[in-house]
Amino acid sequence: MEKSYHKKTFENIPEEKRERIFQAAITEFASNGFNGANINTIADNAGISIGSLYKYFSSKDDLFLSIINRGYKLLDGVISEADLSGGDMFDKIEKLLRAAQKYAMLYPEINQIYLDLATEGLSHLSKRLSKTVETISVKFYRTIIAGAKKEGVVPRDLDDRIASFCLDNILMMVQYSYTSKYFMERMRIFLGDRYIRDPELIVRGVMQFIRGGFSRGIGARR
Amino acid sequence: MEKSYHKKTFENIPEEKRERIFQAAITEFASNGFNGANINTIADNAGISIGSLYKYFSSKDDLFLSIINRGYKLLDGVISEADLSGGDMFDKIEKLLRAAQKYAMLYPEINQIYLDLATEGLSHLSKRLSKTVETISVKFYRTIIAGAKKEGVVPRDLDDRIASFCLDNILMMVQYSYTSKYFMERMRIFLGDRYIRDPELIVRGVMQFIRGGFSRGIGARR
Repeated sequence: MEKSYHKKTFENIPEEKRERIFQAAITEFASNGFNGANINTIADNAGISIGSLYKYFSSKDDLFLSIINRGYKLLDGVISEADLSGGDMFDKIEKLLRAAQKYAMLYPEINQIYLDLATEGLSHLSKRLSKTVETISVKFYRTIIAGAKKEGVVPRDLDDRIASFCLDNILMMVQYSYTSKYFMERMRIFLGDRYIRDPELIVRGVMQFIRGGFSRGIGARR
Repeated sequence: MEKSYHKKTFENIPEEKRERIFQAAITEFASNGFNGANINTIADNAGISIGSLYKYFSSKDDLFLSIINRGYKLLDGVISEADLSGGDMFDKIEKLLRAAQKYAMLYPEINQIYLDLATEGLSHLSKRLSKTVETISVKFYRTIIAGAKKEGVVPRDLDDRIASFCLDNILMMVQYSYTSKYFMERMRIFLGDRYIRDPELIVRGVMQFIRGGFSRGIGARR
């Protein structure tokens, strides 16, 4: 069961109002970071009093964690749409890569908040999470790699821990690249404008590299 | 020439005092993030008055950017020690990976500050940087890949932009993994405790994946 961080009262207000509060909070947390975010600004922009806000969330921490949960739901939605059921392992990874890219482009602010959550300054918050994106994705990777080994798509002695770690490192940085100006500029320095304008070029190139990573590689020593 | 963000007066105080101020600032910025950091706490912990601190740096922004510059110098030091001159492309990458890992383990706080700098909340600061780590590393990657193509170590039609982007994505996430509790826990979920205890296992595994990425890979379509 999903752990929730809001008070029961939050569920009794109209959907539209809940949405307004979330949007105000997302914008404020994304642009100023958790520590710089002002809870009064959030209440103001949502058009409610600070007293009301504390009726729905007991603390700034809880409001922040509620937004993280909401992000999981949005991500679930994008991944469900991607339909990862068919094809071989690489088809699945390609769909996941495209979903990660799409998710970051659709919801840059939510992704900015995730990035903030991973910083050391917010470790008091991240340790309160009942699950992280990683706990979900690592299971997915293990399953598809095990399948690919059975089908002979990848070498049987492939280190699935390292392979899924490297794979996720690549996917995550692609996702971050659409998330902050710093990382977007970094991607531009590496890839140039042509790739930035055409996200499909990035998918094709990155998949080529990943396919190689799952093979034995050049001068493999084992 | 290196752009500097401190006032001239900062250069006239004893080395030991400069060091004390930097250390106090690094600890405060790392644990609370830029937006949560308190400039009074920094002055207190450095044993100086807030007035003195403003004699050395005109603003919190400038103090932060001075620390970023200091980080570059420390990184330069670690990379120089790694001696990237000998060996083939993969030897150089392996040394760089080991240097990135070592740098993150030696200076976790500086790396926490880098991570913070990449968030959207600090884009007003990152755009003031005259250079970034990426502008330096991208040149290095292009040079060694060009060399490896000439020597026939990697395919001539390898997309060096994509390859260096993926390579850097992997290296960067390894580095981040030693930087915050969140990312350390993420690495533990992917790799398990045995790899966390033995950084060399990570180097060997990750290099295997990278070697593959630079090859043509499984079912390469081009």
